[in-house]
Amino acid sequence: MTETRLRVYDDTRALFHLPPDVIYLDGNSLGALPLGVAERVVHVIKSEWGDELIRAWNTAGWYVQPRRVGGRIARLIGAEVGSVMMGDTLSLKVYQALAAALDMNPGRKVVLSDTGNFPTDLYMAEGLIATLGRGHRLQLAAPEDVEAHLSDEIAVLYLTEVDYRTGRRHDMADLTAKAHGLGIVTVWDLAHSAGALPVDLSGVGADFAAGCTYKYLNAGPGAPAFLYVAPRHADRARAALSGWMGHAKPFAFDLGYAPAGGVERMRVGTPPVLAMAALEASLDIWDRVDLREVRARSLALGDLLIAEVERRCPSLKLVTPRAHDQRGSQVSFAFAGGYAAMQALIARGVIGDFRAPDIMRFGITPLYIGEAEIIRAAESIEEVISGEVWRLPEYQVVNAVT
Amino acid sequence: MTETRLRVYDDTRALFHLPPDVIYLDGNSLGALPLGVAERVVHVIKSEWGDELIRAWNTAGWYVQPRRVGGRIARLIGAEVGSVMMGDTLSLKVYQALAAALDMNPGRKVVLSDTGNFPTDLYMAEGLIATLGRGHRLQLAAPEDVEAHLSDEIAVLYLTEVDYRTGRRHDMADLTAKAHGLGIVTVWDLAHSAGALPVDLSGVGADFAAGCTYKYLNAGPGAPAFLYVAPRHADRARAALSGWMGHAKPFAFDLGYAPAGGVERMRVGTPPVLAMAALEASLDIWDRVDLREVRARSLALGDLLIAEVERRCPSLKLVTPRAHDQRGSQVSFAFAGGYAAMQALIARGVIGDFRAPDIMRFGITPLYIGEAEIIRAAESIEEVISGEVWRLPEYQVVNAVT
Repeated sequence: MTETRLRVYDDTRALFHLPPDVIYLDGNSLGALPLGVAERVVHVIKSEWGDELIRAWNTAGWYVQPRRVGGRIARLIGAEVGSVMMGDTLSLKVYQALAAALDMNPGRKVVLSDTGNFPTDLYMAEGLIATLGRGHRLQLAAPEDVEAHLSDEIAVLYLTEVDYRTGRRHDMADLTAKAHGLGIVTVWDLAHSAGALPVDLSGVGADFAAGCTYKYLNAGPGAPAFLYVAPRHADRARAALSGWMGHAKPFAFDLGYAPAGGVERMRVGTPPVLAMAALEASLDIWDRVDLREVRARSLALGDLLIAEVERRCPSLKLVTPRAHDQRGSQVSFAFAGGYAAMQALIARGVIGDFRAPDIMRFGITPLYIGEAEIIRAAESIEEVISGEVWRLPEYQVVNAVT
Repeated sequence: MTETRLRVYDDTRALFHLPPDVIYLDGNSLGALPLGVAERVVHVIKSEWGDELIRAWNTAGWYVQPRRVGGRIARLIGAEVGSVMMGDTLSLKVYQALAAALDMNPGRKVVLSDTGNFPTDLYMAEGLIATLGRGHRLQLAAPEDVEAHLSDEIAVLYLTEVDYRTGRRHDMADLTAKAHGLGIVTVWDLAHSAGALPVDLSGVGADFAAGCTYKYLNAGPGAPAFLYVAPRHADRARAALSGWMGHAKPFAFDLGYAPAGGVERMRVGTPPVLAMAALEASLDIWDRVDLREVRARSLALGDLLIAEVERRCPSLKLVTPRAHDQRGSQVSFAFAGGYAAMQALIARGVIGDFRAPDIMRFGITPLYIGEAEIIRAAESIEEVISGEVWRLPEYQVVNAVT
């Protein structure tokens, strides 16, 4: 934090564009627009691409952008200097992490995950296991049973810290320690953690982790992902997606692959410069806030939303753990009419989202959401539920993207 | 082409931003900036992301953007409707293509490529072969010997049509036909073809193809790649990178993977919406030009550059084939002092690039390069070479990115 610290909400709310008629509780899916993003991207387009052209790879620092930006993400997830690389998408980054992790435990065949993991993580694992063709299998436990399934037959523990539907949070330090005690390598998906709560990858001794930047980090639709490799593994980890940008000498144009040192080898192809410029603008805010303050505000706002909704709408059943240390930065309720109810809420400008089969999901993003918004949201929820608006047939059912 | 056709250069030159002191002959590495890009991206940032927020996945068509844009690329590469999907990077798209192609020929173990293929294609193949662990091997022939190496032991023929260094062009129709006659599946990299010359994937009966959009297609640094899967294969091709966006029902959030129909299964994670918006703006030009006219201009400009340089600088040895049907849209010369000479040229505003060990490379992009620029470039080349400016020690050697 090189500049003055920003107070969460009090200073940061004014740094976001939000439509006046909207209460936005879906920043856990797509974060709101920080004010400086458009100007930053235009600068990169006009002054760097337009004027510098190919020279900008050097003059504007495009080539080192994935590492430079990774360094700024590192602070938010408790990662060591030089251990985070940006690029591609979270699906691809968990694939790289899982491939490298399996390679470190060649004698074991089980990937342990849970039914609360985001489906793309499971699908990518399925694809990798099929490609490997070496008899691996993906074992899914219920989230609360993961610990009981740890054994010395497990090669990799492959989890998302915070459940995308319920907001339940795993104890990353405890599970990592127990996994290591059994010789298991860990891969943590931080999609709903980065920017939502303090993460301490170095402190918990994580092996691999990955996350996206378009949720709490507010970098825009399809913003690039990050990959963390513990420094103790980084020079040995196999880069299954061995692209030229991860080569030891990318501009020698050798015919044979040789991995770069450290996490640099996890680069694949040409980095998404424009998208990453948007992320850089968003990080200008993140650089100046204290994640502990974000977390304290998030928990208080979550408690408020829970209390207000439970008081007003007894038919909505809380599925997010009440205990602070067991939840992320969202509050979810199960409700049989949740699909239509959420459409009715969105039509009223209260934007949360729905996750099958019956979860109404509300993201808490304290940089731009405060108590007043939470109370107004709860009022709208009550209006929709008690008015049985969710039963009306005319609400068209259209799904949103996570 | 729904609007009036644009004449190449005469109408299109004014649609690009180029710095006044620059002659840009590196559009085969990073295309120049089309004028409407910044405005389009700002619209997506402010009006779609900023105002619509998560709703823009539906209201602004973000979810279908990879397919919609793929449909516009299809016209440029002679692909069937619905056969092209956008996303990720070229490295990842050739990986997907090669994985699917190998899967179609499980009894064969050899991937045949050539020493003129771009290294990342070879590196990704190495990584895939290691992950497969089934005894595949990558065999590299000299470009002129590829045909002689075709046999019924080859599983996949894996080539880039136009050599990134020399500009030599393979005969895609002939090689594809001969490969098919031997039961070989083909994967074509169109990095230096798309937007450079007419491509007829459907006509040649290609199986898989991929390409990037930041070169001739002018979509900006790190712009997304495209993947073509022949319709006859698309419902059977295995998606090795099986992400949720390629799932048959991505919003059912099933725990198990089931591929979507057709090329949709080759989607992986969340698409890069901002970067693809830049591509859409660039395609507004491409939609309105005739690739045959682009090609005719490119060949004439290439002939002019060859004649001018050979007349002025006999020490530069042409490595690009003279025959029109054997070259792409660049002209390359071998020159022992090429590295420093190119730096001296760039310092004078004539921007080409250098590829190890001794290749000076000049891209021909007729949308914004005409005869006058070619002649001025040749004059500068003569000045640098004859003045032995390339021998001066003070030129710092800094490499550019392909």
